[in-house]
Amino acid sequence: MGHSTALLTDQYELTMLASALHDGAAQRRCVFEVFARRLPEGRRYGVVCGTARLLEAIDQFRFGPRELEVVSAFLDETTVTWLRDFRFSGDMDGYPEGELYFPGSPILAVRGTFAECVLLETLALSILNHDSAIAAAAARMVTAAEGRTLIEMGGRRTHELAAPAAARAAYAAGFTSTSNLEAVRRYGIPGAGTSAHAFVLLHAASGGDAEESAFASQVATFGASTTLLVDTFDVPSGVEKALRVAGPELGAVRIDSGDLGILARQVRAQLDAAGATGTQILLSGDLDEYAIAALRAAPVDGYGVGTSLVTGSGAPTANLVYKVVEVDGVPVAKRSSQKATNAGAKRAYRRYNASGCATEELIRPFDGPEDDPQQSVRNLSVPLMRHGSVTHSEPLTAIRERVENGLQRLPWEGLNLSRGEPAIGTTVES
Amino acid sequence: MGHSTALLTDQYELTMLASALHDGAAQRRCVFEVFARRLPEGRRYGVVCGTARLLEAIDQFRFGPRELEVVSAFLDETTVTWLRDFRFSGDMDGYPEGELYFPGSPILAVRGTFAECVLLETLALSILNHDSAIAAAAARMVTAAEGRTLIEMGGRRTHELAAPAAARAAYAAGFTSTSNLEAVRRYGIPGAGTSAHAFVLLHAASGGDAEESAFASQVATFGASTTLLVDTFDVPSGVEKALRVAGPELGAVRIDSGDLGILARQVRAQLDAAGATGTQILLSGDLDEYAIAALRAAPVDGYGVGTSLVTGSGAPTANLVYKVVEVDGVPVAKRSSQKATNAGAKRAYRRYNASGCATEELIRPFDGPEDDPQQSVRNLSVPLMRHGSVTHSEPLTAIRERVENGLQRLPWEGLNLSRGEPAIGTTVES
Repeated sequence: MGHSTALLTDQYELTMLASALHDGAAQRRCVFEVFARRLPEGRRYGVVCGTARLLEAIDQFRFGPRELEVVSAFLDETTVTWLRDFRFSGDMDGYPEGELYFPGSPILAVRGTFAECVLLETLALSILNHDSAIAAAAARMVTAAEGRTLIEMGGRRTHELAAPAAARAAYAAGFTSTSNLEAVRRYGIPGAGTSAHAFVLLHAASGGDAEESAFASQVATFGASTTLLVDTFDVPSGVEKALRVAGPELGAVRIDSGDLGILARQVRAQLDAAGATGTQILLSGDLDEYAIAALRAAPVDGYGVGTSLVTGSGAPTANLVYKVVEVDGVPVAKRSSQKATNAGAKRAYRRYNASGCATEELIRPFDGPEDDPQQSVRNLSVPLMRHGSVTHSEPLTAIRERVENGLQRLPWEGLNLSRGEPAIGTTVES
Repeated sequence: MGHSTALLTDQYELTMLASALHDGAAQRRCVFEVFARRLPEGRRYGVVCGTARLLEAIDQFRFGPRELEVVSAFLDETTVTWLRDFRFSGDMDGYPEGELYFPGSPILAVRGTFAECVLLETLALSILNHDSAIAAAAARMVTAAEGRTLIEMGGRRTHELAAPAAARAAYAAGFTSTSNLEAVRRYGIPGAGTSAHAFVLLHAASGGDAEESAFASQVATFGASTTLLVDTFDVPSGVEKALRVAGPELGAVRIDSGDLGILARQVRAQLDAAGATGTQILLSGDLDEYAIAALRAAPVDGYGVGTSLVTGSGAPTANLVYKVVEVDGVPVAKRSSQKATNAGAKRAYRRYNASGCATEELIRPFDGPEDDPQQSVRNLSVPLMRHGSVTHSEPLTAIRERVENGLQRLPWEGLNLSRGEPAIGTTVES
């Protein structure tokens, strides 16, 4: 099922394969690792996301006639023949989705022949870079929202097929729901959304009051528990009409423009005065984690977040890289300036203090002792694939719990939204 | 052919449809327009991109059993039945791809019933916001590169299925080629790419010199005209080995790290001294339009651009909106603060001075006189769909020419990379 993912890659992965098949190096056993040299500027943690999507995409990484025709334009027949039968048969280990990471954390390790590992570079990075960028932004918004409802509604501000993945990453990081229907279908995320200004304006041609007509229509179709958008013309009068139409049982009002903090207070007072004490107030309109945090003192029940979420709130890619660290058991590393890579396969652990707070990311040689005598150190990697078969699967709820748990165990500065250093330091043992 | 795009949308488009079907407003004739209230901060122009992808996606916007099952969870039977037969049957006009735009430019006008127009909002915005953001960033890089080769290689820094669209937008704006194989297949864009550091490191296990072994392997497979990556260890020694292996017929060297301007000069001198005067120098590594411009004086033949391109170089979305402007012939507009929308369907023209330089974006009521007596005014919209059938199609080369022509006809300040005002002003006539 599903389309081949084999062309979702860079041409040079295939030209490297061709050369390596010719000189015999293609069969050397390699370890490639995915990590971030640094976090996006000022960020205090990253959030691993996309692994399940990657495992699925690898399963579909096959070269059929359509794919072979494309690569035949620049590859010799030996390589094309090799690709015809290609299927990844190596091993993968990595931080599970929702695990926090820091600079240098080896969030994915891929083991196999050079040929099979090199082919997956672009696909692995595309998926992990995108999903992890969104998850990190989402986690900051979840922290800022302090338990209030967060609706993902950014599909219109990102590529149409990136949108469901963005919704998945947001939900994994703790968002409540999504407006994106493909995400609802594919991942079972709760859907949300009721109406836009266009629906009110449509009723301007009705004769009578546009807003009141629109509200009446929406309540007739979806009941009083719906959310009415009250800011098309004037918020107090929009709220008044909403209450007239739906009564105090009205589910929620949404405000999408204006000074949201002031409006929320006014609307809360207006709702309460009308006995609509259970009617919620939802805010939207260019919100990011800073705006959400600034609205903490306002009587807000939930936020709809779009642009800033799907664009990673200033960090649209996680800047993860995929580097060969070991060839036939020998550690290897690039040595040119600025981009030095730590050679050798690694294991990663996180150290905690007596009160359960994370204190350090420990990166050790893979061949070092696996079991640490200190109970305060936790192994961060799990097996994801063995001999090309997926060995790891978990529901999105488990990922949500992992993010929540990870954030709870950070030093308190780690949850600051301001620019700063990584929440914990990374120690590389050799 | 192709998957349904009907779920690549927001839930509220469908709940609005349901209410409008119930109250009878669904059949009102509407005009929706796509425009940007403002350009991304400091940008001097936008570039329309994605229209052809949108027209194709609309053709696949159909509700089959899989899609109907999802929407049945929150829609009544009347609406679900209506969706079963849905097919967009309206008209579309818009700026052709590659046309520049400015704040308020009505780059797309969608005409039809409220029901059929509202359903397309999210899909239209997802596609146009993504592709136009990339095209605008790419056009700035093309300007900065002053005719040198530009290779798109950002697939790993964006969603795996956004990558081919990003490559298309970059090529449309004037890039030379792409590393993304799906873009090669789907759009016929020239492919590019030879090798990464991993290929050199793979040969560290060979005994002998890793770089020399890797270069020899690559040249044996792809000939001396290939591009060798010379910065894995030390650039001068990498270049020396490259020349030893490939001789002065070597196609190009690529440098991916270090002080690129200084290295380019050193490498040019080294190549020339060895008689490799035809060997090109390609640079990559976190380049954006500013870095490209800063390298203008260096002996560079081409640039590989990744992250900054696919993330829109600081503006990952074009922030285009889709607003109803007319219902049953009556202009309508939202009136709340900050987000006022100009009511009424529009036509757009661009005025030029005697030397052919653009001076003004003119936005007039749609019902005004179509033919302007002034020859210096150009109509900007073309018919894209009539009665649901696509009426517009053109090759990517035509879009490239349009971008080039549009940039040539901007006032010179419009091509500045620095932050500034839109290159021309917008006049809205009423």
